Amino acid sequence: MSSRALQKPVRMARHLTKPALLDAKPQQREARCKIAMIGFGTVGRSVAKVLCERAGRVLLTHVCSRSVNRERVPWLPPDVRWTDDVNEVFAADVDVVVELVGGLQPAEDWIRRALESGKSVVTANKQLIAHSGPELVELAHRMGRHLCYGASVAGGIPVVSALQDGLAGDRLLKIRGILNGTCNYVLTQMESAGMSFAAAVKEAQKLGFAEADPSEDVDGLDAAAKLAILARVGLQVQLRTGDVMCRSIREIEAVDFEYAHELGCTIRQVSRAERNGDCLFASAQPALVPLSSPLARVQGSQNLVVATGEFGGDTVYSGFGAGGNPTAVAVVSDLEAIAKANGNGAGLAAAEPQPPKEISSDFASRQYVRFTVKDRPGIIAALAAVFAEHQINIDSILQKPGYEKSSLPFLIAFEACRASVLEKALEKIRPLDFLVKPPLSLPVLSEGE
Amino acid sequence: MSSRALQKPVRMARHLTKPALLDAKPQQREARCKIAMIGFGTVGRSVAKVLCERAGRVLLTHVCSRSVNRERVPWLPPDVRWTDDVNEVFAADVDVVVELVGGLQPAEDWIRRALESGKSVVTANKQLIAHSGPELVELAHRMGRHLCYGASVAGGIPVVSALQDGLAGDRLLKIRGILNGTCNYVLTQMESAGMSFAAAVKEAQKLGFAEADPSEDVDGLDAAAKLAILARVGLQVQLRTGDVMCRSIREIEAVDFEYAHELGCTIRQVSRAERNGDCLFASAQPALVPLSSPLARVQGSQNLVVATGEFGGDTVYSGFGAGGNPTAVAVVSDLEAIAKANGNGAGLAAAEPQPPKEISSDFASRQYVRFTVKDRPGIIAALAAVFAEHQINIDSILQKPGYEKSSLPFLIAFEACRASVLEKALEKIRPLDFLVKPPLSLPVLSEGE
Repeated sequence: MSSRALQKPVRMARHLTKPALLDAKPQQREARCKIAMIGFGTVGRSVAKVLCERAGRVLLTHVCSRSVNRERVPWLPPDVRWTDDVNEVFAADVDVVVELVGGLQPAEDWIRRALESGKSVVTANKQLIAHSGPELVELAHRMGRHLCYGASVAGGIPVVSALQDGLAGDRLLKIRGILNGTCNYVLTQMESAGMSFAAAVKEAQKLGFAEADPSEDVDGLDAAAKLAILARVGLQVQLRTGDVMCRSIREIEAVDFEYAHELGCTIRQVSRAERNGDCLFASAQPALVPLSSPLARVQGSQNLVVATGEFGGDTVYSGFGAGGNPTAVAVVSDLEAIAKANGNGAGLAAAEPQPPKEISSDFASRQYVRFTVKDRPGIIAALAAVFAEHQINIDSILQKPGYEKSSLPFLIAFEACRASVLEKALEKIRPLDFLVKPPLSLPVLSEGE
Repeated sequence: MSSRALQKPVRMARHLTKPALLDAKPQQREARCKIAMIGFGTVGRSVAKVLCERAGRVLLTHVCSRSVNRERVPWLPPDVRWTDDVNEVFAADVDVVVELVGGLQPAEDWIRRALESGKSVVTANKQLIAHSGPELVELAHRMGRHLCYGASVAGGIPVVSALQDGLAGDRLLKIRGILNGTCNYVLTQMESAGMSFAAAVKEAQKLGFAEADPSEDVDGLDAAAKLAILARVGLQVQLRTGDVMCRSIREIEAVDFEYAHELGCTIRQVSRAERNGDCLFASAQPALVPLSSPLARVQGSQNLVVATGEFGGDTVYSGFGAGGNPTAVAVVSDLEAIAKANGNGAGLAAAEPQPPKEISSDFASRQYVRFTVKDRPGIIAALAAVFAEHQINIDSILQKPGYEKSSLPFLIAFEACRASVLEKALEKIRPLDFLVKPPLSLPVLSEGE
């Protein structure tokens, strides 16, 4: 279904591709979207891995990196072209350039050159998008190309597309969130382990959650950049990093968590942007948040965003805000969206969901069975015998006081087993004459199950 | 920028519109996307309201309802055409038909006729999409039209687009969620107020959270339909309502919550779909979930979805799963997406975010100030005098025992005031000689702030 195009000669003249929908011949519209990646660090490698491991409309054809010989990996297909010359990327026959070098320069120049040479751009560069997003979007628009930056905020949580498209039918009033995983890790460690700020930062550095110089994270600049981007896509106001009031979390001490708890609160770095008539309120700073609020529940390096719409009320988004793989998911999702809009790989991805070979409800999990019995000696023994026969292990037996002997509820909790195995045991149990009503069985899910 | 087209004569011949991008002249591409709505109940009225109250690429031109004279509302523009003849909709010069009548028939016929007459379709009809989604998507695809059903699952939470587009770059393994607000309301009432199932259902009916016959909700069919749709868009497997094992929540009693709490759990109706090799596991049933899990925290009629991706891990989405306005947001977001894909109203909606007239960080909120002092008599009096002078009301003063008198931390919490007002008071306080270090001030956010 897909046809991998031959590599074009290096340093060919700049050219402007027209939108694929307008000029592509039918067989070309089946072709996959070709991409070149600039930067091959943690996120770049994850993007390449994801592209290799899953079928999609996107085909990696070029990797550009300064230390190309050191970074070259054996698991990429041999026809991926490696180069240390960025000009080769702008001249190449690719549809999209993925910028993963970060920082303001030369990233901005490279994105401009990619757009000017008729390519769409996907980037994870929050500082650049917060700083120059409006101008770059305008350039992309003028060139009839896409500029996508879903990976620039909250990594694997698709919150940029949720605000931009998923809530396009609402009018958003307010966005608040936990946008910096380093701050959240440091604050939750101070809270749960009673650590000092300095000790928590040291631990975060050891685990790779904080940079050697953690200033950009702990002083709020990173969160401010992300808030500027979210405000732009969600509240439709132009906001830059420098417009967002930042306050550091450095002054927070362990005693502040004690006092916060007295007030039913904890402390988080909260980024907020809110329309108020013609004025926009915006800040990224530590704040007390009620223990019952979604913001308080964000643990470790996770991120969370709450958007408040005039019509739809609050919607909440959470997940991993950073890390190679989650960020790669955001990059690849943007690539898939561009490929879809360009009509690339229509035959590939329009494949309808297939019926599964088998459908089952026979989940394995811990099990809860509540029995209601007319009490008499020997009931537990009778039940235990049946479960033993079916090799189902009892985890605990609980009986709350205060119920009539004639209709006594008690609980048996079981170690993990398949629902069908439990059901077979219950079939044998249902006719037993001490039961006042049929036993109630429920699966007991674990965290994450 | 927008031009409202004149109404076409009634019962004109069927015609096939070509995709706007391919045949539209530049000035037509600026035109807004015209829509006809079939069904004018709670959601229909909310959709009409949202479309009237916000600028967008979408223009409502027709409303079709059986009891058109009874339902006609004065607040729609006079050139919206009202009709009780659905044929008029199929013959009309509209781009999209919004189906909001619900149920399998005649909704399915009408959606087919709309697609066959060259219109895209937006629907909130979960039962129909769960039942016949694959065939209708195939028909839309054949006609080169869009079929969008974001409103069919979890109302105002854009989870269909999140799974379909936002996480397109991942490979999802597992979806679980609280998809039925009625069940969640009933179970959380049983839990918090110790109500019986029957009493909780009665209360839900009184508040409009449950139908007169609540079977479809409490017995799991509603959740099963939504799970089938999410599995299709997220796991790319064809699943129908009838394939999902359902169990009712009717057997749950108050005592089950007591036993669940003993196990560190509560009870929720949980819908789950999970790939397991060639087999798909799927069920919609009551289950014990750990009190610490996101599923346990869903209160009242809210919905929540957790998607687990191979690369991005867990992402969580929550908000209002039903109700006129949240569902309308989903419908209008789908309409905006179609309008965007068709190139409608490009001039309208491509308007770049504007700089706000004013940017401020002067949020009003309750305030927390931690002082660290060398203790001596009169400190509170001195501080209180400054705050009184600035008309800032003290809410409480807290002092934890166990600290040295030479460096004693204590807290003053204040009623809501602007950050700038507090800052003025703190300016006067900072030079006071009993302070060992500068006071630390933090805003205290309320739930939802």
